[in-house]
Amino acid sequence: MTDTALIPDVPDITDAALAARLQAALDNKTKPVGALGRLETLALRIGTILGSERPVLEAPQMLVCAGDHGLAARGVSAYPSDVTWQMVENFLAGGAAVSVLARQHGLALTVVDCGVRRDFQPRPGLVSRRIAAGTSDASVGPAMTPEQCAQAIANGREVVRALPGNALLLGEMGIGNSSTAALLLARLAGQDVGACTGAGTGLDAAGLARKRAVLRDVLALHANATTPLAALAAFGGFEVATLVGSVLQAAQERRVIVVDGFIASAAVLVAQALQPHVTQRCIAAHGSAEPGHALLLKYLWLTPLLSLDLRLGEGSGGALAWPLLESACRILREMASFEAAGVSRKA
Amino acid sequence: MTDTALIPDVPDITDAALAARLQAALDNKTKPVGALGRLETLALRIGTILGSERPVLEAPQMLVCAGDHGLAARGVSAYPSDVTWQMVENFLAGGAAVSVLARQHGLALTVVDCGVRRDFQPRPGLVSRRIAAGTSDASVGPAMTPEQCAQAIANGREVVRALPGNALLLGEMGIGNSSTAALLLARLAGQDVGACTGAGTGLDAAGLARKRAVLRDVLALHANATTPLAALAAFGGFEVATLVGSVLQAAQERRVIVVDGFIASAAVLVAQALQPHVTQRCIAAHGSAEPGHALLLKYLWLTPLLSLDLRLGEGSGGALAWPLLESACRILREMASFEAAGVSRKA
Repeated sequence: MTDTALIPDVPDITDAALAARLQAALDNKTKPVGALGRLETLALRIGTILGSERPVLEAPQMLVCAGDHGLAARGVSAYPSDVTWQMVENFLAGGAAVSVLARQHGLALTVVDCGVRRDFQPRPGLVSRRIAAGTSDASVGPAMTPEQCAQAIANGREVVRALPGNALLLGEMGIGNSSTAALLLARLAGQDVGACTGAGTGLDAAGLARKRAVLRDVLALHANATTPLAALAAFGGFEVATLVGSVLQAAQERRVIVVDGFIASAAVLVAQALQPHVTQRCIAAHGSAEPGHALLLKYLWLTPLLSLDLRLGEGSGGALAWPLLESACRILREMASFEAAGVSRKA
Repeated sequence: MTDTALIPDVPDITDAALAARLQAALDNKTKPVGALGRLETLALRIGTILGSERPVLEAPQMLVCAGDHGLAARGVSAYPSDVTWQMVENFLAGGAAVSVLARQHGLALTVVDCGVRRDFQPRPGLVSRRIAAGTSDASVGPAMTPEQCAQAIANGREVVRALPGNALLLGEMGIGNSSTAALLLARLAGQDVGACTGAGTGLDAAGLARKRAVLRDVLALHANATTPLAALAAFGGFEVATLVGSVLQAAQERRVIVVDGFIASAAVLVAQALQPHVTQRCIAAHGSAEPGHALLLKYLWLTPLLSLDLRLGEGSGGALAWPLLESACRILREMASFEAAGVSRKA
């Protein structure tokens, strides 16, 4: 598979005329100019992505990509790898945070097994796109072969292509994947890996120090993995690469992409390194308590909607922010203008 | 009417045993301890207010209190007083921001005419509790008589008593009422009135300077109005006093009170000065772009859920934050425990 076939073209969607019409529509709503603050910026962005002055979000899809990490054996997480498959079961049974929140907001939930160390029984809501039973240990070699990495990206594209609607919410599960995100951020954004590394699901101080030391070694081992695809293959994981493909496909189709926390944002980082206009389609749902996330969002020029000290992943932050996107669209579609409502303007 | 009859008793609802059970329930959900951040704090608070480990928010009521201000004639607002009644019409016609957002979230919307300078035709959703056609000009005397102030508080209590459900969202409309809020904050919290005063609906620099000068004079004129009720009568307005009564009644009934922006928070400030345990029932929806709001929330020890640079009022921020309250309750009610889901705990 050539890179051209693997990585879709994602054009610039800047449209000054549409932006001016959207701004005029917002300014003409019955409220002081700008009084809805960042909800107005959000309305502008969604209107631009969907190419509409009266945008309608349709059939939103929560996509939770799951995979295991060879590096987890090096003690970079507070939880054992078994939690990955256990949480996949929990997602499907409806008991996880993202299950509860997706149900609340009518988000269709699809869980993708991108390479979990466990065989699942087929069932509704589960899509199997397994590459292998977990990635290889990135502390001894690349997490994925180039072929595995390309396959995972292609899988992500194919999964999104088959989903309806015009909005994609990114979610993930994979014990060890905050290490992957830290490594990708350090390499692709040129940040110090120590600053990119946090407690993840809850390491103590000693655990965090060990994680930082391991990640420094991994980064040094793969000093030559400097391109986006080489870094992705070196650091993993299958679920992150599948998300990269999902983001690229959704961006090409001009879906609204709702970015969850640190790991989902790392997938956007890789996609943006491959196609710089990807982030025009992205909305950062929240700023995570994981310290690397603020660095990453700043690098991507994305400002999060929520700041609630979340550090769960799964897509939980995206689901929590979702009603704000709906509100932004409804403001454009349903609020009266000064003229229509007969309200006086500023003196 | 005696003060005892006017101001209901609002007892301390601290319950250490319930708080411990709520915290244990949250810690036992399938997520790292604390990983849902401030959503967990919110769940604790709602559980405490409703006295339940499985809280259910029922029939939430958006109450928008409207009134006119004599002080508006002094040029303290960017908009003419007519906008108050025009926006009441807009609320009822469904075209205002709060109308759109209330519809989105299934919030019952009640508009109370507390003293607008306009006669409204009776219609569904409008409750008439007029004290007079706008308050008196606070720059020449008290905005309300003590009797008017007491009546407006009693009205607020009565309106809430008649509403179903266990959650009240505060909203307001009244050209000039950011001046009222600034004056109440300055007097009751001992803040400099300049720091409490912002551009409101959109004054320019000269307008803001004029507003500050007017408010300093008003504050000096009513130097003796130091009790909560005297300050409320001095500075107005009818809609703020009605909200004070609404907050007190809702607090006595242990409803969840969702506080919108600067003006709604000023009503809570007065209520809290009368009954200090009121804020145990309050949730700050958002931090406004109006500069006094941050001072006011800090004084009340409330941390806002959203920070979206809103400065509209009406209850729009409360409506935008509402789904987070629902999420917090659903986390408690619907998320699986580690045991139930068979998920391994931290190593």
